[in-house]
Amino acid sequence: MRILIIGGKGTIGSKVSAHFARTNDVIIAGRSTGDVKVDIADSSSIKAMFENTGKVDAIICIAGQAKWTDFDDLSEEDYYIGLRSKLMGQVNLVRIGQHYLNQNASITLTTGILADDPVVKTTSAAMVNGGINSFVKAVSLEIANGIRVNVVSPGLVEESYEKLKDYFPGHIPVPMNKVVNAYVRSVQGKDRGEVIRIYA
Amino acid sequence: MRILIIGGKGTIGSKVSAHFARTNDVIIAGRSTGDVKVDIADSSSIKAMFENTGKVDAIICIAGQAKWTDFDDLSEEDYYIGLRSKLMGQVNLVRIGQHYLNQNASITLTTGILADDPVVKTTSAAMVNGGINSFVKAVSLEIANGIRVNVVSPGLVEESYEKLKDYFPGHIPVPMNKVVNAYVRSVQGKDRGEVIRIYA
Repeated sequence: MRILIIGGKGTIGSKVSAHFARTNDVIIAGRSTGDVKVDIADSSSIKAMFENTGKVDAIICIAGQAKWTDFDDLSEEDYYIGLRSKLMGQVNLVRIGQHYLNQNASITLTTGILADDPVVKTTSAAMVNGGINSFVKAVSLEIANGIRVNVVSPGLVEESYEKLKDYFPGHIPVPMNKVVNAYVRSVQGKDRGEVIRIYA
Repeated sequence: MRILIIGGKGTIGSKVSAHFARTNDVIIAGRSTGDVKVDIADSSSIKAMFENTGKVDAIICIAGQAKWTDFDDLSEEDYYIGLRSKLMGQVNLVRIGQHYLNQNASITLTTGILADDPVVKTTSAAMVNGGINSFVKAVSLEIANGIRVNVVSPGLVEESYEKLKDYFPGHIPVPMNKVVNAYVRSVQGKDRGEVIRIYA
């Protein structure tokens, strides 16, 4: 398969890319690294990326930003960072990417445990994750050409535990191989419209 | 209690307003009707509304738009109708409204069954609802002064069944009194951070 992985150099993305690259043709896209440059907050950049890659069999997005800070410090404009990037960026990957997929391909988005179990400073990030989870269920009712759309919602992965543990008191670090398997399930299985939660 | 009900003249809002008005001082806000005018898609309009009403004990929002149409017909800009109105409109009601509440007051937002069980044409509406459900959980961890924030997520209410039934095949019409009770639970109970689902 030709698999396009947006954010394929990140903490989770690099492991997912390494896994799929063993037996597939993997194209990595990122804002500053990878085979193709893309800023998912800009739909014209998404279009340019697909014009560059041509058709693929699977799109995986493990990218997108949202501002983390105390609720009382988040301005209206701060929320739009997440709305343009992790929310509409992923929506636009589906809107635009569907036209660059072969038959019976898949799109796998990424959210996270904050949608279900938020922590302090994450009103924007939690909101964006919850929005994508519901979007994936909805778009799966309509998208054409047999395209399957799923979303992986990981907990705090072991590789991020030291850096982020103070934000996630009592959360259970999740082994990366379980998270990688969730992407495998989405790409190689038959699920559609699933929120694949990997929280322990 | 002084209760501000945004969207208090709508299908659900009029019943919620009538219920609370029996034993409370109810102020109704709306885009074109009510005691105070407000366009929740515009945060300066929200600020002006609260300057007009002064402090209240409860804020209830049963307002907010999102565009319904086929996924392939929804433009990027169409999504922003819902992002600005039903999503950020409700976020801004919490951001701004918290400063116009008496001690131990409540804010009750509204989403709907589409967050969990979307139907065709609702990629934008489902996304916005899912985002608010997660936002309410997150903001409840942080909001000050004992303010409780909840969200009521109604199914298709009986009063809308004839108009909307073709969009909701097989959905069970929900009696309005059950939905009104969900707002009562949020305003008069002790719940915080709850998504109060009334789907049957």
